[in-house]
Amino acid sequence: MAKEFTRQHEVVYYECDRTGSMTIPMLISIAIRISEEQSDQLNRGTDFIQSFGVTWILTNYHVTISRLPQVGETVSVTTKAQEYNKYFCYRTFWFYDEAGNELVKIESVFALMDIHTRKMSRVTEEIIAPFESEKISKIRRFGQLTKLDKEKPYTQLPYRVRFYDIDSNQHVNNAIYFNWILDALGYDFLNQHQPKSITIRYEKEVSYGNQIDSLVQIDETTICSRHLIQVGDDRCCEAEIEWQKK
Amino acid sequence: MAKEFTRQHEVVYYECDRTGSMTIPMLISIAIRISEEQSDQLNRGTDFIQSFGVTWILTNYHVTISRLPQVGETVSVTTKAQEYNKYFCYRTFWFYDEAGNELVKIESVFALMDIHTRKMSRVTEEIIAPFESEKISKIRRFGQLTKLDKEKPYTQLPYRVRFYDIDSNQHVNNAIYFNWILDALGYDFLNQHQPKSITIRYEKEVSYGNQIDSLVQIDETTICSRHLIQVGDDRCCEAEIEWQKK
Repeated sequence: MAKEFTRQHEVVYYECDRTGSMTIPMLISIAIRISEEQSDQLNRGTDFIQSFGVTWILTNYHVTISRLPQVGETVSVTTKAQEYNKYFCYRTFWFYDEAGNELVKIESVFALMDIHTRKMSRVTEEIIAPFESEKISKIRRFGQLTKLDKEKPYTQLPYRVRFYDIDSNQHVNNAIYFNWILDALGYDFLNQHQPKSITIRYEKEVSYGNQIDSLVQIDETTICSRHLIQVGDDRCCEAEIEWQKK
Repeated sequence: MAKEFTRQHEVVYYECDRTGSMTIPMLISIAIRISEEQSDQLNRGTDFIQSFGVTWILTNYHVTISRLPQVGETVSVTTKAQEYNKYFCYRTFWFYDEAGNELVKIESVFALMDIHTRKMSRVTEEIIAPFESEKISKIRRFGQLTKLDKEKPYTQLPYRVRFYDIDSNQHVNNAIYFNWILDALGYDFLNQHQPKSITIRYEKEVSYGNQIDSLVQIDETTICSRHLIQVGDDRCCEAEIEWQKK
């Protein structure tokens, strides 16, 4: 059984949108912070990992939302690195309210990237052992993702990568993509809907100086939005979000 | 003597830039959070204030920086609402490191805005009394601000207001302006310099749907940058930042 790690978090106004619900970028950032704390506690922090010339990157998230954390409440966040194979680590996060109800579940896929070649690197025993994750041979798939269909109408907005979007891995932080993805839906849509599930796949790094396009297509019948982040013709990230009316 | 309020804050990675220094928008957001906590403690929280049909807005900041808080450290933030006059409240924040050294001082000017007319409203005893601020008759000026000179060369970048930029006052949150102001300086400048002081004046609200321009002019001799945020020809915000080489 993989080691669990839990931490309380008090939700404050600058983590929330205008209605007081935690934003998705902040939800993701807080989850990643908790996993970094567990890594530090197990002496597998950033410095240790980078001493092998590699760094953790995120390749997928599948987020299931019962209710978003609200400003003023204290949530409890639990995580464990459940499984791993040759190239991927599968870590889950759970957000609970004070009564113990599950608010959000985040399934994530981590990989190691060689800092110099920017290519994926194998997961080694030395890095993974203290988490007591189960070694598996298969590759897990999280959430079916229906791609945006460029043959059908879609909208497209340009965004410029900002200095603050870049993290210590010298590329756009994975949480920032949600700003581009969600913002492209527009004020009225975001005001009237809340997300039920999010599936996202990162395909290519985005760097400072890039101008990205955020493409979005809404399936009105299922209230699903399909998203593509691209730099020129390069596909960098795809996502699908299921919504419900507020 | 005005009542003091202090809180510890642990600096985490998503509050920092790629070099591990706390970002200016986050510095401001954390300060405002601490002042909200003091207000809540004194039963002068948002709901109480809004029951009079008004809301707090920020009109000025003057920030003096010895060193920015760094990822992993715990800082102590102290605030008090020192003085007020007919229309303005003067509140100061101090950030200290664990040894008690002052890292950052933020002098701020708050005013009350009528939620419906969007005009300034008088500061009443009912709202201000519990803070035990000193009543003064004069209007304080914080930091001389040399304006950007449009007769001289400057650079200009467009930014679109995003959904997440809007706060519960239904306008762009005051911390967001720092994203536009700083980002316009570019990667190389931001990597090579750190701010010593910041003076900012908010003049006009910015709303969702606005496209703003961030203008910047650098005085190479003094290493001062002068900034203007405008919507069309409307001046919304002016700032001056003193820098030093890293």
